[in-house]
Amino acid sequence: MKCEIIAVGTELLLGEIVNTDAQAISQGLAELGINVYFETVCGDNPERLRSVLEIAKGRADIIVTTGGLGPTADDLTKETIAAAFGKQLELHQPSMDRLLQHFKGRTMTPNNEKQAWLPQGCFVLDNDWGTAPGCAFEAEGCVVVMLPGPPSECVNMFRQRAMPYLAKLSGGTICSRYIRVFGMGESEMESKLTHQMQTWRNPTAAPYAKEGECLVRVTAMAETEEKARAMTEPALEELRAILGDVVYGVDVDSLEQVVVQEMTARGLTLAAAESCTGGLLGKRVTDIPGASACFLGGVVSYSNQAKQDLLGVKKETLEQFGAVSEQVACQMAEGVRRAMGADVGVSTTGVAGPGGSEQKPAGLVYIGLSTKEGTRAVRILKPNQSRDRVRRLASSTALDLIRRYVQGLSE
Amino acid sequence: MKCEIIAVGTELLLGEIVNTDAQAISQGLAELGINVYFETVCGDNPERLRSVLEIAKGRADIIVTTGGLGPTADDLTKETIAAAFGKQLELHQPSMDRLLQHFKGRTMTPNNEKQAWLPQGCFVLDNDWGTAPGCAFEAEGCVVVMLPGPPSECVNMFRQRAMPYLAKLSGGTICSRYIRVFGMGESEMESKLTHQMQTWRNPTAAPYAKEGECLVRVTAMAETEEKARAMTEPALEELRAILGDVVYGVDVDSLEQVVVQEMTARGLTLAAAESCTGGLLGKRVTDIPGASACFLGGVVSYSNQAKQDLLGVKKETLEQFGAVSEQVACQMAEGVRRAMGADVGVSTTGVAGPGGSEQKPAGLVYIGLSTKEGTRAVRILKPNQSRDRVRRLASSTALDLIRRYVQGLSE
Repeated sequence: MKCEIIAVGTELLLGEIVNTDAQAISQGLAELGINVYFETVCGDNPERLRSVLEIAKGRADIIVTTGGLGPTADDLTKETIAAAFGKQLELHQPSMDRLLQHFKGRTMTPNNEKQAWLPQGCFVLDNDWGTAPGCAFEAEGCVVVMLPGPPSECVNMFRQRAMPYLAKLSGGTICSRYIRVFGMGESEMESKLTHQMQTWRNPTAAPYAKEGECLVRVTAMAETEEKARAMTEPALEELRAILGDVVYGVDVDSLEQVVVQEMTARGLTLAAAESCTGGLLGKRVTDIPGASACFLGGVVSYSNQAKQDLLGVKKETLEQFGAVSEQVACQMAEGVRRAMGADVGVSTTGVAGPGGSEQKPAGLVYIGLSTKEGTRAVRILKPNQSRDRVRRLASSTALDLIRRYVQGLSE
Repeated sequence: MKCEIIAVGTELLLGEIVNTDAQAISQGLAELGINVYFETVCGDNPERLRSVLEIAKGRADIIVTTGGLGPTADDLTKETIAAAFGKQLELHQPSMDRLLQHFKGRTMTPNNEKQAWLPQGCFVLDNDWGTAPGCAFEAEGCVVVMLPGPPSECVNMFRQRAMPYLAKLSGGTICSRYIRVFGMGESEMESKLTHQMQTWRNPTAAPYAKEGECLVRVTAMAETEEKARAMTEPALEELRAILGDVVYGVDVDSLEQVVVQEMTARGLTLAAAESCTGGLLGKRVTDIPGASACFLGGVVSYSNQAKQDLLGVKKETLEQFGAVSEQVACQMAEGVRRAMGADVGVSTTGVAGPGGSEQKPAGLVYIGLSTKEGTRAVRILKPNQSRDRVRRLASSTALDLIRRYVQGLSE
């Protein structure tokens, strides 16, 4: 089956927003094994949308549209598509009831009602993330799926409403699971998983790189979601066994989420002393709601004076080894652990760049970890990387070091 | 003139990357006053690209393509476009010389040479950001511009090579300037600038909202870039006069950049005490290379104990007013200023959410500022916003408070 994605919205053509809807839909269709050969963007203009639909009819079995389902006068996707496929719009009472419920206690203007008018005989895709319902129908040998444009609505509607509908057409439902990895490069991961990637058909395994981390998506298709999910289990087990303890979680969002969960579950507390990351590590930990259960706080010791005054780093150590050194990283981690009365102290000190010297080049970072078992530091060196990437990687390395300590793994 | 953007790349159709190239090109074309009616994505497949080109020829005066100019076997855009317009490829010796220079001291494999073969008679767009040159030509009533796909190359090539080429076709070159604003909403800004937005033709003024801030883009077109730039000056002056001191800079990147520049220029030092932002404020300041010239560091006092131990916040104040209060914000700012020996101390304490109480709802944040002139705090309340947005806004408010103090403006 060949699919074409049509995004409708003048704001896309003006470059006001980027077409993330198309990306999310493309990913989901790839999981379903449906090929996307073309993607088109056109404005909120009925004639041009009509011409785009005629072209798509001739080269696609499935057409997925985004945008133009809302209440305003320029939202004309539904009307234009219905006309292109010779269909009338009719009032869909359950959708009208949902709208009335949504506007309960407020005035619902008449233009909002038009969102409940849908092509006759269509399958309605309820919108739990906004007001405009989506819909799907088959006509003239094509499957047409219409989704709202705002990304938060579109992506949820696509994954939770449209994907099950499309999977049923091909006789199943799908389940995707994600293995998250830190500390192994994408190419190394791919070489370890070549066999699974190339030979698995259901479930499939697909690797991705994302912000200095890697993940593997495992997707299974079966008659029911439960069966599909059950099929992913042995696959996840096999992949975890191959990848080992670089796997920091399955179906989790981030390293910081795992750190907060695992420390909170064990009743452990954390404090951070940051130099080159300048607050990024604390920021990432406190991105997680409920981080206060384990995170006491930290010190951003950007200046050497702050390292001495607030963390007790020794002046002689700074003079002898420099601020960017294993010794200072260890004293920073110990110092913040002591100052905050935390179970675990972590530290970063490095050269984020640009700039740096021959002995201390940009990309050199030491990460310290202090616990009741002792204090140690690891060294990372990532030359020719942007300041952003060095800082991101330093904070990720610190988080992974905490994760490994908490889980009782070797360094 | 009507333009169609064609992005070539199977990775787009698989959803592996998002089509940021199309957004950047759309924005630039809008600045040039060129309408984009359609955008298309197709894979690295000559037949399908050929069919897309035939459709574009029939509905566009300008075709801009991205992707498929590289050295690998599936990079076939140039060959396919040349064939579609009846052109041969010929060796462009200056591009070959650039390639040889690029690979100096390393082996250049034969497939790299193909990057120097370009459609006969084309205008070559030199690539200073990668190896594959772009090119442009006119044929069959169409202007065709080809750009490489990697975003860092594509965006620079488009703005610095293709836009001057396209501007010349319409008899000029363009210059865009950006006014950055914090502390005024997009709709208020639009209502203040309605006259300029609607009546100005050259230069034009266009407002944008971006991550809780606003900006106005002023674009002028003239025979030379110097003349275009000169035309933007009175426009910038007029807009600044209307907007007042919410304007934090022209042609600057961010609030943090302005804060670091202005403090460094005045020899002032900064320290930050962060509760609800958890390190984000320090992270943003230290995003700026050279931040160490003014930023001494800070304390992330997520727990009340840390507020007392490291910042000297009084136990009674915490008990009487709570951690999220004007009083605690002031004591935090004073405390960090004293602990770090800084000229300016800034603090954040608030409820980032989700959660919160009736008295202290999610979105309530106090920002403290302590200087030699005294200490004060401002209150912001942004209910119904995500944790991310509350934290981002709190850190922006803190940065703007510092900016206003340093520039001698009223609160």
